[in-house]
Amino acid sequence: MIRYCCFLFLSLLAVRELNGQTYQPNWPSVDTRETPAWWSNAKFGIFIHWGPYSVPAYAPVDEVEGVYEKYAEHYENRLISKNKLFMDYHRRTYGENFTYQDFAPMFKAEHFNPNKWATLFKKAGAKYVVLTSKHHDGFCLWPSQYSPKWNSVAIGAHRDLAGELSDAVKKSGLHMGFYYSLLEWSHPLYKKETINQWVDQHMIPQMKELVNAYQPEVIFSDGEWDYASDTLKSAEFLAWLYNESPVKETVVVNDRWGKETRSKHGGYYTTEYDLVHDQKGIGDQAAHPWEESRGIGTSYGYNRFETTDHYFSSKQLIDLLIDKVSNGGNLLLNVGPTADGMIPVIMQERLLDMGNWLALNGEAIYDTQAWDSRPADMKANSVYYTRKGKDLYVLCTKWTDMPIRVKNIKKPSSISLLGYTGTIKTQYKGSQLQIIPTALSPATTPSNYAWVYKLENAL
Amino acid sequence: MIRYCCFLFLSLLAVRELNGQTYQPNWPSVDTRETPAWWSNAKFGIFIHWGPYSVPAYAPVDEVEGVYEKYAEHYENRLISKNKLFMDYHRRTYGENFTYQDFAPMFKAEHFNPNKWATLFKKAGAKYVVLTSKHHDGFCLWPSQYSPKWNSVAIGAHRDLAGELSDAVKKSGLHMGFYYSLLEWSHPLYKKETINQWVDQHMIPQMKELVNAYQPEVIFSDGEWDYASDTLKSAEFLAWLYNESPVKETVVVNDRWGKETRSKHGGYYTTEYDLVHDQKGIGDQAAHPWEESRGIGTSYGYNRFETTDHYFSSKQLIDLLIDKVSNGGNLLLNVGPTADGMIPVIMQERLLDMGNWLALNGEAIYDTQAWDSRPADMKANSVYYTRKGKDLYVLCTKWTDMPIRVKNIKKPSSISLLGYTGTIKTQYKGSQLQIIPTALSPATTPSNYAWVYKLENAL
Amino acid sequence: MIRYCCFLFLSLLAVRELNGQTYQPNWPSVDTRETPAWWSNAKFGIFIHWGPYSVPAYAPVDEVEGVYEKYAEHYENRLISKNKLFMDYHRRTYGENFTYQDFAPMFKAEHFNPNKWATLFKKAGAKYVVLTSKHHDGFCLWPSQYSPKWNSVAIGAHRDLAGELSDAVKKSGLHMGFYYSLLEWSHPLYKKETINQWVDQHMIPQMKELVNAYQPEVIFSDGEWDYASDTLKSAEFLAWLYNESPVKETVVVNDRWGKETRSKHGGYYTTEYDLVHDQKGIGDQAAHPWEESRGIGTSYGYNRFETTDHYFSSKQLIDLLIDKVSNGGNLLLNVGPTADGMIPVIMQERLLDMGNWLALNGEAIYDTQAWDSRPADMKANSVYYTRKGKDLYVLCTKWTDMPIRVKNIKKPSSISLLGYTGTIKTQYKGSQLQIIPTALSPATTPSNYAWVYKLENAL
Amino acid sequence: MIRYCCFLFLSLLAVRELNGQTYQPNWPSVDTRETPAWWSNAKFGIFIHWGPYSVPAYAPVDEVEGVYEKYAEHYENRLISKNKLFMDYHRRTYGENFTYQDFAPMFKAEHFNPNKWATLFKKAGAKYVVLTSKHHDGFCLWPSQYSPKWNSVAIGAHRDLAGELSDAVKKSGLHMGFYYSLLEWSHPLYKKETINQWVDQHMIPQMKELVNAYQPEVIFSDGEWDYASDTLKSAEFLAWLYNESPVKETVVVNDRWGKETRSKHGGYYTTEYDLVHDQKGIGDQAAHPWEESRGIGTSYGYNRFETTDHYFSSKQLIDLLIDKVSNGGNLLLNVGPTADGMIPVIMQERLLDMGNWLALNGEAIYDTQAWDSRPADMKANSVYYTRKGKDLYVLCTKWTDMPIRVKNIKKPSSISLLGYTGTIKTQYKGSQLQIIPTALSPATTPSNYAWVYKLENAL
Repeated sequence: MIRYCCFLFLSLLAVRELNGQTYQPNWPSVDTRETPAWWSNAKFGIFIHWGPYSVPAYAPVDEVEGVYEKYAEHYENRLISKNKLFMDYHRRTYGENFTYQDFAPMFKAEHFNPNKWATLFKKAGAKYVVLTSKHHDGFCLWPSQYSPKWNSVAIGAHRDLAGELSDAVKKSGLHMGFYYSLLEWSHPLYKKETINQWVDQHMIPQMKELVNAYQPEVIFSDGEWDYASDTLKSAEFLAWLYNESPVKETVVVNDRWGKETRSKHGGYYTTEYDLVHDQKGIGDQAAHPWEESRGIGTSYGYNRFETTDHYFSSKQLIDLLIDKVSNGGNLLLNVGPTADGMIPVIMQERLLDMGNWLALNGEAIYDTQAWDSRPADMKANSVYYTRKGKDLYVLCTKWTDMPIRVKNIKKPSSISLLGYTGTIKTQYKGSQLQIIPTALSPATTPSNYAWVYKLENAL
Repeated sequence: MIRYCCFLFLSLLAVRELNGQTYQPNWPSVDTRETPAWWSNAKFGIFIHWGPYSVPAYAPVDEVEGVYEKYAEHYENRLISKNKLFMDYHRRTYGENFTYQDFAPMFKAEHFNPNKWATLFKKAGAKYVVLTSKHHDGFCLWPSQYSPKWNSVAIGAHRDLAGELSDAVKKSGLHMGFYYSLLEWSHPLYKKETINQWVDQHMIPQMKELVNAYQPEVIFSDGEWDYASDTLKSAEFLAWLYNESPVKETVVVNDRWGKETRSKHGGYYTTEYDLVHDQKGIGDQAAHPWEESRGIGTSYGYNRFETTDHYFSSKQLIDLLIDKVSNGGNLLLNVGPTADGMIPVIMQERLLDMGNWLALNGEAIYDTQAWDSRPADMKANSVYYTRKGKDLYVLCTKWTDMPIRVKNIKKPSSISLLGYTGTIKTQYKGSQLQIIPTALSPATTPSNYAWVYKLENAL
Repeated sequence: MIRYCCFLFLSLLAVRELNGQTYQPNWPSVDTRETPAWWSNAKFGIFIHWGPYSVPAYAPVDEVEGVYEKYAEHYENRLISKNKLFMDYHRRTYGENFTYQDFAPMFKAEHFNPNKWATLFKKAGAKYVVLTSKHHDGFCLWPSQYSPKWNSVAIGAHRDLAGELSDAVKKSGLHMGFYYSLLEWSHPLYKKETINQWVDQHMIPQMKELVNAYQPEVIFSDGEWDYASDTLKSAEFLAWLYNESPVKETVVVNDRWGKETRSKHGGYYTTEYDLVHDQKGIGDQAAHPWEESRGIGTSYGYNRFETTDHYFSSKQLIDLLIDKVSNGGNLLLNVGPTADGMIPVIMQERLLDMGNWLALNGEAIYDTQAWDSRPADMKANSVYYTRKGKDLYVLCTKWTDMPIRVKNIKKPSSISLLGYTGTIKTQYKGSQLQIIPTALSPATTPSNYAWVYKLENAL
Repeated sequence: MIRYCCFLFLSLLAVRELNGQTYQPNWPSVDTRETPAWWSNAKFGIFIHWGPYSVPAYAPVDEVEGVYEKYAEHYENRLISKNKLFMDYHRRTYGENFTYQDFAPMFKAEHFNPNKWATLFKKAGAKYVVLTSKHHDGFCLWPSQYSPKWNSVAIGAHRDLAGELSDAVKKSGLHMGFYYSLLEWSHPLYKKETINQWVDQHMIPQMKELVNAYQPEVIFSDGEWDYASDTLKSAEFLAWLYNESPVKETVVVNDRWGKETRSKHGGYYTTEYDLVHDQKGIGDQAAHPWEESRGIGTSYGYNRFETTDHYFSSKQLIDLLIDKVSNGGNLLLNVGPTADGMIPVIMQERLLDMGNWLALNGEAIYDTQAWDSRPADMKANSVYYTRKGKDLYVLCTKWTDMPIRVKNIKKPSSISLLGYTGTIKTQYKGSQLQIIPTALSPATTPSNYAWVYKLENAL
């Protein structure tokens, strides 16, 4: 085995020597590519799940049931598998003869204003946007020639939703990316007997079409769990993406490229909680770029039945962002627009609350890194750390009137509370710094969510 | 004139002597009735605008235009009057051949759960609920036999929405009331030539039908501006309501019963801002029960185009409630449900924020009265007052770290900050009390919205 | 009793003497009015059943069932009475939550061209047209102010269908009339408790509105069976119609004005077969003007499930016309247009076949009278008679190569076969005329349906 | 060239010697296959055009326009090419945002009863049925895995219309076939750049799928005009069809397999009138099997605007059948069902009239051949001939009372008029037979359409 790897390594070197930045169509080669820095510095992205499932916008949050049913974007699959809750709801609401496909003409996006979306995301402090170009239902938000009657230009909206959003997002100075599902629940060719036909005539050409048409800087692949990556020819695709595609320099991909690849191959690791097997992604423990995706509510696709019980509060979302970033990850926070093209006001408000907090405290988030000496009990203590150059940021998700101890640092040249002009007192217990919280009142606090001390030249 | 009044007064006395609590069908008589105490003590009610206009849910908030266009419930009228903004939107969205009436089958209320609504309103701290039984479009939310094809049982929802909500609200312990429009924009009999036919064969029988069927405890009449109250036979109706109806003891009505009646006749005065003539209702200056209605957003009926820019924040709503109550009024806060029967999550959140604040501070609101000695500059100083028996409540809508002066009171037997267990220090400058704010931090403040000092035995 | 009648008669005479053509609001008076001659001479009219029931266009012709279910225009009633066949069909086709009212927006009449209809009826040889202005479902084909949301201008077509057809028919030189239902299955006021309100506030004002707006020359009243004519104030209405209305000189009415009036009171008698009680109308035996109505198929309203098995052939329809006219009646032949406003081609063809036959043989139909000496066995022999002045027409619905005997006439001055130029031979057996059929071949016959001999100066 | 052909011919012989009935994938080989006898004997088939175009069912018959616009099945193409008549109609009727694809959910076929259709076709006297499995719009009436969201199982009807009709037709004893379009107007792969992908990944696999799934006995190919047959790999497909497919013994195909193939290659020649170039197909002059297709009206797909002016009469259709058969051809008569799955009654009636005529006269049609000695002036004289064995049939489309001359025959052993029991007189002018028409009257004629004399042993 070692011998083989060595050989491979040598040949790789050989190829790269000859051709410059050339990747081979295999994991050892494509895995050598580094994640572009823009993404590692960005920290905060917006995920968007939007498609025909946004029309029913249903998942049974209210009823006694396995938690796995909470994703509204899985509506088609629940009908296919005859899930009782979904079937009952579907018949009651749409009647006997109504199929998932009948939602497509109702996915009109008639009030979709991509510039307003982009403006909102920018105000929220996000640095990139990832839209479901095609989810597991196979519906394309762009006019794919490999999905001729099942895309947003052909039916319903009659608009190139992916293209319009891509333009607006790029114009606003954010990075644009696409989610793409390798599987399609109801495509007749997606089955063992015809899987090669699927890959060669549908999936690979379609991904290339997408990349060529819109030059996305993120590809969030998904639906990789049925087949091994060599069946899906994923390494081959990535070699093309890195060597030849129009985004070969800047594109970032994730790790979902075959049933064996998560937290092993591809680009950054993804750590979405696995509801089916009740286990957490391992990627967030790795010394490797990683990203966690979450909905503002419990569903990714819009679920009209979610209430205040299901939405994270602004406070929770800011805590979540701090937790991920201080541990070296990115947060890809999901919004679920409605079928008419609007972002629910409750989601707007959450994003703007985050943006307001970031406007004051963003320097502790963007362009930072996890602090190698961070303690293991950050979450328990509600005190987190990020570093940038020689500076250390201390992020408190609960206000405390008690001194805050910071170990393993040099004496900082200065200490401040972001958004607060007064002096911050300190004291030392041996070499250990203690920050003495100032007397903030409701009238003087810079935030009601989280408070950041900046320790300059402490590392 | 005086002579006539005297005569009338005497005859009234005569009648009341003979029959006990009997009202005559004229203003001098029906105006003698006192507003039932339950309503004056309630302070906070929920207004609901819901009907076929909730389907388009459109008012042009975005565009440069006169502010009067911001009410989504006026959609039909804007089409009738060929308002350009509405017409353009209508044609673009629904096509040339689509009329207002075509919205009715789409007003399905398919997810309407009256018990969930009632639970939410109760959690919000509201004490009564007022639903648009019929707005100016004439669409009835109950199966009125005077509107046979234009009600929610005949078309769309196929449910008695008014009846179902009435049951749920009463079961939850709140009071139930109805808004009712005396006019209908597009009813062919509502015109000068046939106004008597209108009143005798349609309007009066329909109001009685409503009262007999559901026993509402509030009737919020509206659309009174075209005809004098004697044409509309309003005093006659109120005499019936007070003498004979099943709710004669408890029902509360407002002051919109003819073009001359606002802030003059009927029950409590209404002070909704008059957008057309750009003037405020005068009712809130009167020594008479009054109520202000407002939307959580700018529209009453749901407007899908409102954003965070248009919604009052929880802070603003709590301030509003404090302002109205400390000036002797009630607040009727409006929610606009969607056509499928849901209350938008942003509105849920606002109501629950108010409810949480009221859970701690409600004793300064419910069952209180305006303090006669309240200063004129309450709003400017962000310090308000309410009284209950001998106690005085000092409501601060901004936290201040400076002493708060309270004049014209006795020395209180004790002072506390609601929701805070520590002692509140005071000092006196002559007879003037100064409350010395305690040192609250973000960790110890009982609220982020408004703070209430209770001064016991101060009056 | 006799005395009373005499008195009445005398007072009637008195009134008429004083006022000229003035009718009193009672049957003895209004029954004295003679049926205007235009109608008696017309013989052939077109009946049109068209309304929201034309959308489902369903009656269960195929299934084993009581024959009474065959009328597609009874759809709403079958749902109200929960008829199993209709209910099953309705749910299967339109779903659980779809009501009869939901058909109204689909009754669009988008291809309705009244001039084309009028041209077709004229080509068919009809002299008058009777449209269902309102059937038992209460839906008005004109913008009645007494049915504000339930008429063809308010919903669906958004056109004044009755007015447009009326204009086109009159312009083409035919007479225009309206069917009007005195009952409405689902109007909340149509019940015993409120029947007076119904008559005074709804029915009578609505009929007058119709007459004043369109000046119809036929009123085909229907739905009279629940109440006596004095409850319905029918004689009162007819007195107004004959004395004051804009059509007092020319209007013709039928005999359906209360549960006791058929073949007794009003205008001409109607002889539609009564399917419920399995008996024929008696009107066609009376020495009084009468009219039979029939569909071209088995239903009046369009039934999409009728096939060639259910449509009368052109031959049968021509036979029917000959049978009715030779017995002194008119034929009101019904067509059922589709919801989009078209007359099915099979109906067009039937009408044109009749028109072609009438173009050649119409002189034996129009302006004729029943022959007093007609034999009783006309139908059995397929030989019928009509008279006009001194001429007698012999109408053969089967061609016979055998001599035709005609009794009780004078020797005609000449005999001809309509549409045939050759000479017709005769012989006499005593005074009895025998017509000797000429040798017609498929190449020389003037018709394939019915053949008419004209006997001039035979009476 | 000759040398090449010889070589090819020899190699073909060689192959066939070796493998029995084996065809090579080239025209010289596949063209050697003989048209199966069942089809040549059948004479009369039913063509069915049915698809999403049956929803609008529009072609502008009324308006002044080029005749080419009369086909309702070309609706999508007329929108693509922005034909003014179609665009105006489309916008007026369906609005601005409605596309051709939006018709698919409305193509419900909810009343489609395949057994009733089959029974009707059998009663009509047809011997085979050809359904548009896929027209130029690409919509499949079966669940093709190469058209996943654009077929009648996926959307609208949710039924396998092709499969259901195929079963019913076969069960009734008729032969079943399919029309299949080689082109698709709006498929993104159908263009020069990707034509090979089209043929290999879409068209050929789809045709094989269709043949394997339903074993059709006719393939009526169409839409062949854009590419040469070698691009379309037609000969290759036919070789597969004749050698390997489940219908290799019985299947019949036509001549539309590439832009150069009409009346040259494939199976029977098709002679539909070419409206664009205003010229008739040449196939009907060839000594080769041929078939003419025609609608009962002017359109193939249902056109709701056709009237009696546009439908052929029963008389015309029987004449047409006689004309085609006596000249050696088949007639494929088209019906256009409605979107709800019904055959318009006018079409039913035409088919049944033909069936009734064939019930009496069918022996002069089925299993006959063109008579080699038929005169050139058959049409001018309204006298046609067919032969069967030694018998000759004389078909008169006009009744004549004059003698009918028949040349070039032997003296027949007997002469009869089909459907007539009387004796037919003859006389001879030299060797020329003269049939003396009997004296038929309207009472004794066996038909009103066409009359057939049978001359036994005349050849």
